[in-house]
Amino acid sequence: MNSLGRHLLAEFYDCQADVLNSPARIEALMNEAARLSGATVVQSVFHMFSPHGVSGVVVVEESHLAVHTWPEHSYAAVDYFSCGEVDCDTAVRYLAEHLRPARVETKVAPRGVIEGSEAPLDAPFASNGEGEASNGEGEASFSLKNGEGNER
Amino acid sequence: MNSLGRHLLAEFYDCQADVLNSPARIEALMNEAARLSGATVVQSVFHMFSPHGVSGVVVVEESHLAVHTWPEHSYAAVDYFSCGEVDCDTAVRYLAEHLRPARVETKVAPRGVIEGSEAPLDAPFASNGEGEASNGEGEASFSLKNGEGNER
Repeated sequence: MNSLGRHLLAEFYDCQADVLNSPARIEALMNEAARLSGATVVQSVFHMFSPHGVSGVVVVEESHLAVHTWPEHSYAAVDYFSCGEVDCDTAVRYLAEHLRPARVETKVAPRGVIEGSEAPLDAPFASNGEGEASNGEGEASFSLKNGEGNER
Repeated sequence: MNSLGRHLLAEFYDCQADVLNSPARIEALMNEAARLSGATVVQSVFHMFSPHGVSGVVVVEESHLAVHTWPEHSYAAVDYFSCGEVDCDTAVRYLAEHLRPARVETKVAPRGVIEGSEAPLDAPFASNGEGEASNGEGEASFSLKNGEGNER
């Protein structure tokens, strides 16, 4: 199945809460994640909620990377809509290094399934073998082990 | 299942192409869609690609509403990450009135499934009975009939 774009939804559970409540740090991490994935940043908008939580979006030439955090739940929702040669997995791994979630779950959805569209549907975000394997429907999950050294 | 947020992905196929190539019109439509859904707009970023196509995101208090258009394919990808009392369906219907797609397909994914989270998972975007019924897994599609009067 070819699609014009690919939309990755990533759930970051049990993250370090102080990081999740810092708009400046989250914005810096998100812009760097976009850059490392090979995307070209157009503009970013980040906003802190009251009493806590950060929302933000990095618009890139290849679409967008967004985050919404819930520090009170140690949770962050990330999504990356991409097309072309962007490496979304690199972005997710970079964010995982810095948000330090205990668990990340991802789904990938094709966007724009047009007959003859040129952009191939990238493979789902693969597990590292320590968590559940991809079920072929665009879902994958894996465990991060913090405390004894990060493994992904 | 309760979740902190709800992420609606909407595919707009066979739209009127001239609308899809106008950043000003798309930005106005997206801001109005956010407002009509009951969201509070924080800021919006819209960008025109070369040679064609518009990308943009409206950051709202309740998360974000994004669009990416491919005029050469008469296609637009919309996604609405919301929490709280936002009515995403109203936003999608408003956009459909103005982008005039022949067909809209939607998926809904829960975001942040936390035990004890307060935000209920909204029902999937229901079909109007003329297309396929929701399969209970967060997918629904319906047909729009243009030319003989819009039906949704």
